[in-house]
Amino acid sequence: MFILMLSVEDILAAHKRIEQYIVKTPIMTSNTLDSLTRCKVYLKCENFQRVGAFKFRGALNALSLLSSEEKEVGVVAHSSGNHAQAVSLAAKMLNIEATIVMPSDSSPVKIQATKGYGAKVILCKPTLESRIATTEELIEEYGYTLIHPYNDLRVIAGAGTAALEFISEVGCIDIMMTPVGGGGLLSGTSIVTKSKCPDARIIAGEPENADDAYKSFKAKKFIPSVNPNTFADGLRTSLGENTFEIILNFVDDIITVSEKEILEAMRFLWERMKLVVEPSGAVPIAALVKQKKQLDGQKIGVIISGGNVDLSDYFINFEHKIGGGSGINL
Amino acid sequence: MFILMLSVEDILAAHKRIEQYIVKTPIMTSNTLDSLTRCKVYLKCENFQRVGAFKFRGALNALSLLSSEEKEVGVVAHSSGNHAQAVSLAAKMLNIEATIVMPSDSSPVKIQATKGYGAKVILCKPTLESRIATTEELIEEYGYTLIHPYNDLRVIAGAGTAALEFISEVGCIDIMMTPVGGGGLLSGTSIVTKSKCPDARIIAGEPENADDAYKSFKAKKFIPSVNPNTFADGLRTSLGENTFEIILNFVDDIITVSEKEILEAMRFLWERMKLVVEPSGAVPIAALVKQKKQLDGQKIGVIISGGNVDLSDYFINFEHKIGGGSGINL
Repeated sequence: MFILMLSVEDILAAHKRIEQYIVKTPIMTSNTLDSLTRCKVYLKCENFQRVGAFKFRGALNALSLLSSEEKEVGVVAHSSGNHAQAVSLAAKMLNIEATIVMPSDSSPVKIQATKGYGAKVILCKPTLESRIATTEELIEEYGYTLIHPYNDLRVIAGAGTAALEFISEVGCIDIMMTPVGGGGLLSGTSIVTKSKCPDARIIAGEPENADDAYKSFKAKKFIPSVNPNTFADGLRTSLGENTFEIILNFVDDIITVSEKEILEAMRFLWERMKLVVEPSGAVPIAALVKQKKQLDGQKIGVIISGGNVDLSDYFINFEHKIGGGSGINL
Repeated sequence: MFILMLSVEDILAAHKRIEQYIVKTPIMTSNTLDSLTRCKVYLKCENFQRVGAFKFRGALNALSLLSSEEKEVGVVAHSSGNHAQAVSLAAKMLNIEATIVMPSDSSPVKIQATKGYGAKVILCKPTLESRIATTEELIEEYGYTLIHPYNDLRVIAGAGTAALEFISEVGCIDIMMTPVGGGGLLSGTSIVTKSKCPDARIIAGEPENADDAYKSFKAKKFIPSVNPNTFADGLRTSLGENTFEIILNFVDDIITVSEKEILEAMRFLWERMKLVVEPSGAVPIAALVKQKKQLDGQKIGVIISGGNVDLSDYFINFEHKIGGGSGINL
């Protein structure tokens, strides 16, 4: 039997806790997207959130809930991406010491950003085993508290606050969509949406090349991804125990999309909507476009998860075009 | 003696006229930008406007004010960029026939977009002389009304409506900033701001490599650009008679910036603020950062003019990375 481990009250409390430190991100619409899908689509733009992703909500909520002893000792997290930066900034704001275990092949930009917020970064081999072993050694040696990127209920509650803001601004929708990687955003969003709008359906988008949630959801049995190979780097992780349970109970469907479909959705968001969205954030839009015949005429909310992409190549090309000259230091 | 040819009442009337057809674009802020400049900065994001630039406001206002005979006959405009798309879409919405003269070296994306909204596109040689000659021939032959991109008072009034929305949302600021190319946005913004917030200063940013407004402003004499060579393609034009007059009377300063300063400001807007902004739109941010010592502690409004950039190269690179596969048609 399923026992609800997290309720909408927890998410309301999380929102109260973190509200003054987060960005109340804007909700954007597009006539072009509406015509294309023949739906009324509202995008909750968490790419504008602090650190560039919804992850900041969960990290800040989890860290705020630590005991004063835990805060004294410090926290550890392992992540190659947005969770690293989220924990680093949240820890800095709460004056907690944070250590982040990052795979040695993480993008230098993300390592730099994580350090920039003040966390200590420890590099490990680029395997899940090495990440976990390194993290466990640190916990063993220093007594740090682990902040899991998606399976932690406090992190899930924080992630759910984006949907809370969405519904309080837009009202109830027919369908709420998110991407699914580890399932934290999808879990928090589902709990809020099903509680506030019981008739709404919850649909997630997932890369075909990292389709553990799709398979697990259909088989009703946890089937982790093996060698996920998607450029939607935030979605390579597999579900956790808690997120799997919540998803099984609250989610209505999971739609998988190809790499090319993700890229085309991402390009649409940049080119037509002028939003810098990372590949993972474009996944639910790809799913929406793919399913547009089934969704015709619906009112749809989409949580756009983040906007962290490495733009070095693009701007270096630009720089070559304009030649040298003196610059400013931004 | 200067005779005010356009008043804030004209701009209020323009806003009433176009309000229901335009996007009330969001105003964005950034802790990082505030720390960097030690100012409180508000960005009015006209990159989210229809056709991706403030130009739609002016085009729609001008076309709405045509007589029914003029509407019957149709309009002509010459532009390699955002004004082309703006006139095309506005004409389509008002059921007016539009012909756009575009230089043959315009980006295929922009030609396609202009045609996409329904206008007839006529290519000319890539010189100002050819543009004007081609346009005049069309007027001679068909009797079209010319919609000038910035010197037309109806276009200036439309452009000013962005600042009107800004002030009604944020209130008065210490300084209002825009880029300056032909001067339409700067003129409309100045009239509104000086009327609503008499103590506010108006400062424009301009590329060093297309600094006719700077030179003309300092010399109090119109000095057009010769061979402007900036990648901020929206700002290569020189001031018009009307915009020069308004700028001389209302603008407090013009700051010139290098190509590299523009590029760094643009990268900041993309990378840190997740906004797709075109080079021209980044120019006032470059000017703000360059002048930050003088502006310390001020409350600053910036009109971000547009977000139309050709992203083909960037996404083609991405496509190569992910390989082939089936896509969707966006």
